Amino acid sequence: MSRARPSQPVKRPPPAALKAPGGARAVAPARADATRERLMAATHELLVERAGADVSVGDICARAGVNVAMVKYCFGSKDGLLQELLDRITAGFAQDVSRLDEQELDAEEKLRLHVAAIVNGYVRYPYLNRLINTQLLASDAKVVKRLSRHYAQPMRAWHERMLSEGARDGTLRKVDPTFFFFTVIGMAEFFFTAQPIMRQAFAGRDLDESTVTRFIDHTVEVLLHGIGRRASAR
Amino acid sequence: MSRARPSQPVKRPPPAALKAPGGARAVAPARADATRERLMAATHELLVERAGADVSVGDICARAGVNVAMVKYCFGSKDGLLQELLDRITAGFAQDVSRLDEQELDAEEKLRLHVAAIVNGYVRYPYLNRLINTQLLASDAKVVKRLSRHYAQPMRAWHERMLSEGARDGTLRKVDPTFFFFTVIGMAEFFFTAQPIMRQAFAGRDLDESTVTRFIDHTVEVLLHGIGRRASAR
Repeated sequence: MSRARPSQPVKRPPPAALKAPGGARAVAPARADATRERLMAATHELLVERAGADVSVGDICARAGVNVAMVKYCFGSKDGLLQELLDRITAGFAQDVSRLDEQELDAEEKLRLHVAAIVNGYVRYPYLNRLINTQLLASDAKVVKRLSRHYAQPMRAWHERMLSEGARDGTLRKVDPTFFFFTVIGMAEFFFTAQPIMRQAFAGRDLDESTVTRFIDHTVEVLLHGIGRRASAR
Repeated sequence: MSRARPSQPVKRPPPAALKAPGGARAVAPARADATRERLMAATHELLVERAGADVSVGDICARAGVNVAMVKYCFGSKDGLLQELLDRITAGFAQDVSRLDEQELDAEEKLRLHVAAIVNGYVRYPYLNRLINTQLLASDAKVVKRLSRHYAQPMRAWHERMLSEGARDGTLRKVDPTFFFFTVIGMAEFFFTAQPIMRQAFAGRDLDESTVTRFIDHTVEVLLHGIGRRASAR
């Protein structure tokens, strides 16, 4: 087993990277509240080290070097803190696709980069699938509304635009954009959620960089051939 | 919201169907233990009615009409009962693919039927994604071992065989069977886990039979074009 244990933190982007999911701050308070930011960064750091397993308010505050009362003061509760963390990450993903639009690429090429970015998101935030799944399974209306607004709706709208462009320029088949959203995220997400199976059932296939690269290639190929009009070259 | 509430059970296959996931009993005790079977059926029934939300030992035993001590006696614990339920369902899926082999079909056609069956499994056992995700997130070694043995390994082995056949007869591209396993399950599973988003973000797209049928068509098309060699006709 190669899971990160608290005693052996794996190398990941420093917590400061959280301020820039995809390059820019997703939710920027008018004036940076240093305590809020330290709590966000500490939570990110601990969740990475513990592979997404639960972290306590005490641990978060100890890591951030702030009083335990600050979580309640800044976020209302630990759930509020985790929700804010998820909001920032998912809003960053939605911003990533807007940035793709600024490039001179056709829809197919943008979708390729997008799929790779989605998979890399689960590598960068290895607690993301657990955070999203836990919240989806709880099915709390307010939480689902935030996930929808920050993430699902902008992402699906972008998918719809790409699919229309691709259909117009003749490279892509007609594909339902709502189903497509679930297909893209599901293909990426389950691979990470199912890592315990990967380690147990298919020994020797640990999640190193080369496996992630090959998984991205696989996912991009299956998906783009899946919605494309061209015959496969391979 | 159209989730099933305890007061409004949705119409599903009767619990007796559990004895035949995919048509045959997956784990058949030498002599049917009536109490065990009644507890299994009651748990299935309650999980369907409550859309996978937690059910208590008390509720299960009341529905089964047996003494509350019987869960411990028959399964060791509630977790043991849930594990047995999951074992039977997943072993049924693994059996389904063996049965596909008995048909005179090429690999591509078998894979089409297989993908539809996987999606329909999540419809038939609407608590399945929650049960699997909860167990994967807990990452308990024993549980993961059972999931691997009953489900992931036989399924991936069958995928590998289909992919090899398809590569030999020239219909399919060369695809990594381990990645393929995660792709197929992820495409089906996330759609069901993400239903709260579907209802919230994409209003009016409730999970009725026609939506499931269209989702199956979408998934089969994307996946089979994704791994196929033929140019798309559409």
